[in-house]
Amino acid sequence: MKIVIAPDSFKGSMSSVEAASSIEKGILRAYPDAETVLLPVGDGGEGTLETLVSATNGYTVPVNVTGPLGDKVAAEYGVLGDGETCVIEMAKASGLALVPPSQLNPLKATTYGTGELIKRALNDGYKSFILAVGGSATNDGGAGMLQALGLKLLDADGKEIGFGGGELRKVEIIEMSSFDARVADCKFLIASDVQNPFIGPDGASSVFGPQKGASPNDVDFLDACLSNFADVIEKTTGIQIHNLPGSGAAGGIGGAFQAFFPSKMRRGIDVVIEYTRLNQLVEGADLVITGEGKVDFQTASGKTPMGVAQVAHSKNIPTVILAGSVGKGIDPLYQYGVVSVHSIINRPMDLVEAMEHAEELAEFAAEQIVRSFFYQKRQIENQVKNG
Amino acid sequence: MKIVIAPDSFKGSMSSVEAASSIEKGILRAYPDAETVLLPVGDGGEGTLETLVSATNGYTVPVNVTGPLGDKVAAEYGVLGDGETCVIEMAKASGLALVPPSQLNPLKATTYGTGELIKRALNDGYKSFILAVGGSATNDGGAGMLQALGLKLLDADGKEIGFGGGELRKVEIIEMSSFDARVADCKFLIASDVQNPFIGPDGASSVFGPQKGASPNDVDFLDACLSNFADVIEKTTGIQIHNLPGSGAAGGIGGAFQAFFPSKMRRGIDVVIEYTRLNQLVEGADLVITGEGKVDFQTASGKTPMGVAQVAHSKNIPTVILAGSVGKGIDPLYQYGVVSVHSIINRPMDLVEAMEHAEELAEFAAEQIVRSFFYQKRQIENQVKNG
Repeated sequence: MKIVIAPDSFKGSMSSVEAASSIEKGILRAYPDAETVLLPVGDGGEGTLETLVSATNGYTVPVNVTGPLGDKVAAEYGVLGDGETCVIEMAKASGLALVPPSQLNPLKATTYGTGELIKRALNDGYKSFILAVGGSATNDGGAGMLQALGLKLLDADGKEIGFGGGELRKVEIIEMSSFDARVADCKFLIASDVQNPFIGPDGASSVFGPQKGASPNDVDFLDACLSNFADVIEKTTGIQIHNLPGSGAAGGIGGAFQAFFPSKMRRGIDVVIEYTRLNQLVEGADLVITGEGKVDFQTASGKTPMGVAQVAHSKNIPTVILAGSVGKGIDPLYQYGVVSVHSIINRPMDLVEAMEHAEELAEFAAEQIVRSFFYQKRQIENQVKNG
Repeated sequence: MKIVIAPDSFKGSMSSVEAASSIEKGILRAYPDAETVLLPVGDGGEGTLETLVSATNGYTVPVNVTGPLGDKVAAEYGVLGDGETCVIEMAKASGLALVPPSQLNPLKATTYGTGELIKRALNDGYKSFILAVGGSATNDGGAGMLQALGLKLLDADGKEIGFGGGELRKVEIIEMSSFDARVADCKFLIASDVQNPFIGPDGASSVFGPQKGASPNDVDFLDACLSNFADVIEKTTGIQIHNLPGSGAAGGIGGAFQAFFPSKMRRGIDVVIEYTRLNQLVEGADLVITGEGKVDFQTASGKTPMGVAQVAHSKNIPTVILAGSVGKGIDPLYQYGVVSVHSIINRPMDLVEAMEHAEELAEFAAEQIVRSFFYQKRQIENQVKNG
């Protein structure tokens, strides 16, 4: 009996690695002889670096970089098991989790550290990049990253602008000449589920600004700043990113990639599935167990459990989903080979208690589900064995 | 595919009938072609009358009787489908639910109404009785019931004592001559899980008095009252109920039955199983689903889900248990054919919310569980069908 365990993180309570390990414990309690394959996954947000590195037996390289607010932070980039593909997780250098909530400030926060990570990887000889851009604290249109790679963003006086989205109002000239020439020889795969444009009511500032600490006034100002930046980018490169789908990802860094990098964007879960070789790992499995913190009607539109289920389904392997919270409207998942969806909650309890006990809850739930799921199979096997 | 649905009530949220119906809805969402058999059960406490009457296609007879505090209450007795067996549920006449919590008073509460129910059934010609004694508000050693049936409990002045456990201190003489002579020609089956003695630290007053409103002083006094009553009963009948197992059931009514009635006691779930013919109903089932509000280490010691599972297991039919709350220590259930135990809770929520949504939660949980449970069987059937 082979069971592939491929959960996302249960946000706020378990990393995907912890979730996978808890689920495995439960399975082994039910069936000590089960063959388990652990493949913690994610949708391209925080944790993607660990996911890809661990799934491919790669490694990480520590790099000290400039954090979102200008202080130094200890970050890292990853190298996949192929030894050639470099994974940059934006959250490591420019992430929300690096800033105390009271200090969040998208007017000031910079992606400079993300640029430093790329630069260091270029120095180390890498040419193939995966960029996981979820969880950023920034709204600077990728300006900091571009600056770290040598691009000069100048104001009317020819002076370089400072850090943060609030500075972009001043940009009048972009000087390309000092931009790192190696970038043009590389491939950048941006793992992102965001389809939002650079500016406007659906743009980076309006949609994602508030969760990064922007007040309504800040949002308007940041949107004007990005708008000016897009104008100058168009003037410089001829590329109009203003309304380009995906350019609003991660505070507009999506736009910077589309204007200045040989890049393409793909859904996070698809990138993860490809690079973890989930396709091959599920081969011959009797069951795939996936999950994440919340599963509901949105899950069918490209969240991790759905992506995992699709891969399994393509090989006629059933998927069971575990979640902290199961909302309405999950029926569409069934057509993608999802057999059933279960909450790990085992009694009335509040969110805090659920988060504190997430690992034991996941273990218990997994044990009970596989007991039920494999009951018929085991019966039939026993009947065959006993003639 | 035949599924027998035999849950107990989920206390405070769903009757066993509502639980069974919700579970059935979920099953039919998953497998519209499933054959479902609904058998709401109980463990001999409140709801037993409905369970037995509905399972046997019997009927009920309304009777107005004296309530626990002397006021009139609308009660009923049941007649099983055989037309001969009468079910008396003590809670209908002398139950906790009939008294507002602030008025609970075991010193005053009487079982007189339970005696009136029996008397009315005797008048109607019944000779075979099932007594469900759970949920009583009384601690009168069954004195009120005996009085209703003509027994005279006299004090030192030859005066009849009043209602309630607090009066029993005064009893000096029991006059048997006017006790209803028909009782001796009847059979009384007492459905009770209680093994406690009449008096002492494990007796009716000490163990069950507090939940009926007795203060620590009341408990001591009530125990002395029952002790005196037991002495006079022994003097009168030669039967020593003081330490007799089960005589402490329902405020000591167990002792009254053992001293004055041709009676035997059986575990509530066993009575329910026998009279609902669960044995026959599970024949040919692929799965039995049972459940109750809370399932934990105590469940294996004779609660409803365990009794149901044992019957199914004797015919090699697997049982799945649904519960509001799943506690520790359920592993012993597996050896009785329980495949798995699942909470119906599908997200972090408090007890109030869980109770309010119990029916939809049970429906959803049942749907998901049977989808998982029957997946393998369906696959194999499809393989066979498609050659």
